[in-house]
Formats: sequence, C-alpha cells, structure tokens
Amino acid sequence: MRTLIKDTVSQLNQSVTIRGRVNSIRSYGKLIFADIRDRSGIIQVVGNEKLSELKEEYIVEITGTINSRSEKYFNNKIITGKIELAVNDFKILAKSQELPFDIHQPDLNVTLPVLLDYRTLSFRHPKVRAIFKVQETVINSFREALKAKDFMEFQAPTIIPSVPEGGAEVFKVDYFGHQTYLSQSPQLYKSLLVSAFERVFSVNKVFRAEPSVTTRHLTEVVSLDAEMGLIDSWEEVRDMTEYTIKYVLEKVQENCSEELKLFNATVPKYTDKIPSVKLREAQQIIYERTGRDCRQEKDLAPEDEREICKWAEEKHGSELVFVSHFPTKFRPFYTYPDDDNPEFNQGFDLIGRGVEWLTGGRRIHDYDTIMAHVKEWGINPDSVDLYLQAFRYGMPPLGGFAFGAERVTMQILNLANIREASLFPRDMERVDKRLPKIEKKTKK
Amino acid sequence: MRTLIKDTVSQLNQSVTIRGRVNSIRSYGKLIFADIRDRSGIIQVVGNEKLSELKEEYIVEITGTINSRSEKYFNNKIITGKIELAVNDFKILAKSQELPFDIHQPDLNVTLPVLLDYRTLSFRHPKVRAIFKVQETVINSFREALKAKDFMEFQAPTIIPSVPEGGAEVFKVDYFGHQTYLSQSPQLYKSLLVSAFERVFSVNKVFRAEPSVTTRHLTEVVSLDAEMGLIDSWEEVRDMTEYTIKYVLEKVQENCSEELKLFNATVPKYTDKIPSVKLREAQQIIYERTGRDCRQEKDLAPEDEREICKWAEEKHGSELVFVSHFPTKFRPFYTYPDDDNPEFNQGFDLIGRGVEWLTGGRRIHDYDTIMAHVKEWGINPDSVDLYLQAFRYGMPPLGGFAFGAERVTMQILNLANIREASLFPRDMERVDKRLPKIEKKTKK
Repeated sequence: MRTLIKDTVSQLNQSVTIRGRVNSIRSYGKLIFADIRDRSGIIQVVGNEKLSELKEEYIVEITGTINSRSEKYFNNKIITGKIELAVNDFKILAKSQELPFDIHQPDLNVTLPVLLDYRTLSFRHPKVRAIFKVQETVINSFREALKAKDFMEFQAPTIIPSVPEGGAEVFKVDYFGHQTYLSQSPQLYKSLLVSAFERVFSVNKVFRAEPSVTTRHLTEVVSLDAEMGLIDSWEEVRDMTEYTIKYVLEKVQENCSEELKLFNATVPKYTDKIPSVKLREAQQIIYERTGRDCRQEKDLAPEDEREICKWAEEKHGSELVFVSHFPTKFRPFYTYPDDDNPEFNQGFDLIGRGVEWLTGGRRIHDYDTIMAHVKEWGINPDSVDLYLQAFRYGMPPLGGFAFGAERVTMQILNLANIREASLFPRDMERVDKRLPKIEKKTKK
Repeated sequence: MRTLIKDTVSQLNQSVTIRGRVNSIRSYGKLIFADIRDRSGIIQVVGNEKLSELKEEYIVEITGTINSRSEKYFNNKIITGKIELAVNDFKILAKSQELPFDIHQPDLNVTLPVLLDYRTLSFRHPKVRAIFKVQETVINSFREALKAKDFMEFQAPTIIPSVPEGGAEVFKVDYFGHQTYLSQSPQLYKSLLVSAFERVFSVNKVFRAEPSVTTRHLTEVVSLDAEMGLIDSWEEVRDMTEYTIKYVLEKVQENCSEELKLFNATVPKYTDKIPSVKLREAQQIIYERTGRDCRQEKDLAPEDEREICKWAEEKHGSELVFVSHFPTKFRPFYTYPDDDNPEFNQGFDLIGRGVEWLTGGRRIHDYDTIMAHVKEWGINPDSVDLYLQAFRYGMPPLGGFAFGAERVTMQILNLANIREASLFPRDMERVDKRLPKIEKKTKK
C-alpha cells in the first residue's frame, strides 16, 4: 500500500512504502541520502551503500521506517523537513539516462528551443510546472465565475465549413475531398447558442495560420469565450467581463501565491471600477501626455497601449483599462455600431500592463442590420447561413468576450515568450519537434 | 432594471421589467395572454389587443405589475403558476419569421436532417436542451471527480506532427507547406505529462476520418481522457475508472432528474463493485449461455457485448461490466502485456447496456519493452520521438482511460443517433450544413 509523501509526516516510527522519483542523491561515506518526490511533496531517505544504485530521475518504490531528524538537520522549507525515511528495501521501477542539463537549479538555464526539445524534462522543473498551475487556475476560475452567473459550458466545434471573413490566415483540412478549415473563433456558434441558451461559454481551441514568428503568437491557442443574450447595453457585457477577469485574478492570487513568488510576479492591480475610455478619448489623453498625435488612427499602436496603461495607473491606480468604440468598418461585421455615432462601434479591448489581454463587445442582433453588414463586408451569405438563421428566428440583444489562456498566463507571470505558456506550443517552425525548413518556391 | 422570470414570484404587486422570448400567444376576446420565457423560467403575461403584435419566438421587453391569479387558474407545473404579469408597456427587441415546424410540442416531430438543418430552432426545444444539460453534467462531473483525486487538467494539442499507427482514418492539415494531422487521441501527450505531473486529465477533441456513416460515429468527438502514474497494478486504473464513472452517473442522477424524465431515461444500475471479467472468461460465459462459440475471437462482437451485459445484470444486478485482457497484438503498441500471460494485455473496456462506453488500461513504462513494441508494430521511432524521450528519462508505471462525451450522453438518454448528442455534429456528409455530393473518381 503506497503512502503519499505528504502523508508520511503522520507516520512517525511506522513502516511505510512510498513511490516516486529520485530528485537528488548524495553519499556521506557509507550513508547515502536521496530526496524522493511524488505529486504531493518531497522526502529525504537514508540508507546504506546499496542505495548508490539509484540515480537522478529514476522511478523507485521504497519501504522503510519514518524517523524524526535530530533538530540540527531540520529543513523548514519542506513539510517533511523534520522526518526522514530509513530505507529497509527498495525497487527500481524505471531508470533514466543521464540528463543533458541540470533540472534541479532554481532556474532552468537553457534556451527556449532546448526547453521545448526536451519537454519531458522541462516539465519536471518547478518553475515550468508553476506556469501550468497558474494556467489551470485561470481556466478553472473562468469556468467558476461564469457558472455562478448561469452560463452554460459548451464544446465549440473545431472543423468549420467556411471562412466568412477571408481565408489568408486559416488552416485547411481535407475533409473527405471537401475543403474545410480549423476554427479561428467560435463567435458565430456562440451567438447561435445564445439565441437558445441565453448565456454560454466555452474553453476551446482556435487556430491562426499567421506566417510570422513572434514572441506573442501561437498557431494553436486555448480560447476562453463567453457570450450573453437579452442584454440592455454594451456596458452590461463590459461589466460581466470585468467581473470575470477580477474573479480569475483573485483566484490566481489565492491559489498560486507560491507560483507567483517563483517568478517574482504579482497579479495586476485594479480598482473597484476598472477605468474605461473610448478610443478617441484614449488618443486625446495620449496626445496631451506625449504630444504624439494618434487621434485619427483606427486602433492603438503598441506604444499607445503602453501609454494608456501608464495613464490608468497614474490617474486611477489600475494596471487594467478598457478601451472601447473602435471605427466600425475596421472591426468584424457583427460588431454593434454605437447608436449615437455609428461610425464607432460598441466593441472593447481590455489592456493590461501595456498589452491587449482580452477583446469583447456588443454584437448586432437585428436581422436587417446584420444582412446590411454581411453585404457591406463582402461576405457570402451562404457561408454564414446557419448563423443568419438564428437572426431570422429572433436573435436577442447580445454580446460577449474572449481571451487566450496562454496570453493571460504570460502576462500574469511576465514571461518573455508565449511559447513558455503553452504545454506543446505550435508555431510556424514547430509542431512538437522543429519542422524541417521548406525551400521557398520561386514563382515563374 | 431587468428581473429574471424566476424572481418575479417574490415581487407580488410590484412593477417589474422582464426580457425574454414569446413562447406562445393566445387571445380571449380583447384579452391577450402570452407565455414569456428566459433562461430562468416561464411566466404568463396578460394585456390588451396591442399585445397581438407579438408572435411566437419574438424577443421582448415587458414592463408591468405582478398580480396573483385566481385559484382556479393556478398552474402547478411552473414556479410562476400562481401569478401573472399585467402588461403596462412592451418593446419588441427582435422579430421572428414564422417557424417551419412546431417547437412547442412535447416531442419534436422532425427528421434528424431537419433537426440539424434548423439547429437554431431545435436548440429551443426543452428536450434538445436537456441533452446538453446532461452532457455538460457528464463533462463537469468528470472534472470534479478527478480534481478530487489530485489530477491536473491540461489542454491536449489538436494539430499533431505525425500518425504513428498508420494514417488511413486521419484528417490532414496543410501546415505552412508541411503535412500535419488532427489528433486521434492524446495518449502520447498524456503519458509524457504523467512523467512530470503524475496525474492528468483533459477534455479535448479527437478526430476520426472514418469513411462510413453510422448512428454511433462522429468525425469530431469530445474525448474525456485521464492518465495516472506511479500505479501498482492495472486494477488501480480500473478502480479509478469505476470511481469516475460512478461519480459521473451519480451527478447526472442528482442534477438532471427532470432531463432524464423527459426521455423516460434512467442512469444504469450498478453494484458496489462493478463486475470485471477477462475477455476469455467473458467468451466462455457467452458460450455457456448461448452455445455461440466466440472463444477464439480477438474481441467481443456487438451480440457478445449485449450478452455479457445480460449476464452482468442477471448475475450481479449491474448494467455495467468491465472486460479486460485482450490479445496483445491487436491492441495499440503501448498497452501493457500481462505478466502471467503476455499474449493478453492489461487493457479493459467498460461495457454498458450492451455497448462499449469507455476504454482504458495499463500502459508499458519500461524503455526496452516500448522500443521492442515500436519495432514489432512497425512504427517509425522518429514519429514518436517526443514520447520515447519520456521513457529515456524514466517513465513511471502508468495507465488511464478515455470516453466520448457524446457516446455516454447518448447511452444515458437512450438516444437513437449519436448526432443528437452533439451540438454541431460532424460526419462524412455534414459540417453544419449537408455537404454537396462528391462524384467518385474512377481509377484509370
């Protein structure tokens, strides 16, 4: 019967059997010490020279007696620091080759390609595991937040039949001889579902075939998507977004304090009400603060995003800020034009610490308006027929938001590269392994 | 300020504003009654002839006063059955075309293609919504069960670089000029993660390009996958599976009693310990009961699955039964051969009500054994290199299981076709819409 390492502390003077991995091993003459870890913790074992068979990263089963350590050997950093296991017997369950780099330093001093080429080893480093503990918490608290508000979780489709808004950055799937695609967003499905379920959310994959390699883009992303119907106003959507992101950050703070510490990271500061400005207001603020005139631009440039965050922090004490009301014609066809000034829409971004965290907004629900936009945006109505059907039979006023789990994990932990925040990152040059170079074909 | 319909019951003689959809409408002379529904419930509203503007499935905002009904008009089937809303004012937020079929009958009397062609309408039927309430409960309770046992949730990749076990039934993705594929199973990723995280699970998509149209197959499936390391025996994996599936069924029973009632469905009966037989034992039982000699077959045929379930129910009072120890060479290369008789392995299926619900088993963890199997199964080691790396650096003894959310939903509710248990089912002939026929090319 196996005992979890964390449970050995209550087994003083008892015989126990543990299973785990050799974290480290050291000899003092005939006495050999090893640290063994399992999912619950780490414990020191001590035995005779037979133990020297063990090597780093071996998988072992060890039976022995739990003894207390003499006080001068207490280790207050671990919960088993006042005990040790005196080995009676052990069995090697699996051996390990010698490691190509040291995984037991406080920091993994390897390049990103090595980190990814040896994923099975990098996952064993506490800092790497911490990233995915934070990510799991982000995803799980997103779920909790929305379930508490009556949202139903759904599974968004991956293979889609058409790409309404043009297909440059989309992956193609050969589907029994038909051309299909990998979903870039569950937006149309979310809207359709809202017409029946009122409030829905999804943890789903989205895919972008962007032919560029940056520190902030992956081709396969975990998207956290929510959509709500029967709304009053775009502000109701923004407020639900604010509630959700605050809930997520609180849970990360609460459940991941050790993990944050490993990265010297803190969750962003925010105020009771996250500041919210329209694009044109943001641009005016930036102009007044810096003299840089971006007041006619259709979006914020990276330096503008940084500046408006500086403003939000200085003026309001918040590292998060909403920017809304972007020019209608530069946003997706379903974004709701503002009633007072239809040149701008009721879409919004949440900017945090100088970069975009999340995007959302109110969507068009009126059949005539969506049909006019479909036409104006040059979309083939057949390609969005299932979606338009929902409008023909009455679409409630609706809106929603979405953010990438990797992006938010990266921002919280202040990682240099988004690939660190994906278990198995896919980019233009890598799908698990580095892809072989493809020679560019010269056009004749 | 909108009031949810379920909250109107505490607003007697108060003025409220509700938002929702017109469920039905009927006139009695100058008095017009309508039932309005939102996500929380349904309420009767009453008003003058102006209300005749409303039609079925319109989206409305209605302001009025909550009055009590006279006792002879009480409706005990709904929580608002003792009140009604006297309309002062209303606003139509969206109109609906006339419906092509009646969505307010107890059963939707349409064919499956119509059900799917008009997905936006079929979702509004209580029985269709009930299916996805059950499915959400299955998925969520799978998560809860495993979290309670220290499993970490991970996001399995969708795009994969190679197909180790042959590529006949796999979808191809053009990846910047490289050939990649859609994942058929996260098995290799689960194992790799177990080597670092010990216990992991995933709610992920898997894809099967099976060129056949049946009532039990989809091309895109929601797979619930779990894997655990540092195990003692295959029975430990089976017992974790048993715990999980029982937990799921209990939660469905607890949270979906109304939904089950709509389908006259019950969750399967099971006993304190679900019966578990080896394949050869099952075949002997079937032979003895029926005289049908399947004792040399490599698997159970559909009639055998039904027979062994009959046996389990008659002999043990359980509608679920485990069958284990299939011939090694007919199962995937990573399945663990039994120590006593390596011709059979430590894989298992859970059979319920005559069909397979779930598959699982212990996996090989020894490096030399997995390398021998890779060779024997004719797999290119390069195609599984990231996976083999985990063995080179010590793989713990491990095992796990997986089941399809749609399959289990279908079985619980006794649906005739698995497509009913998928929000947006994909098969050989449909991706949202029916695909155009492709003429078969004649080989020259």
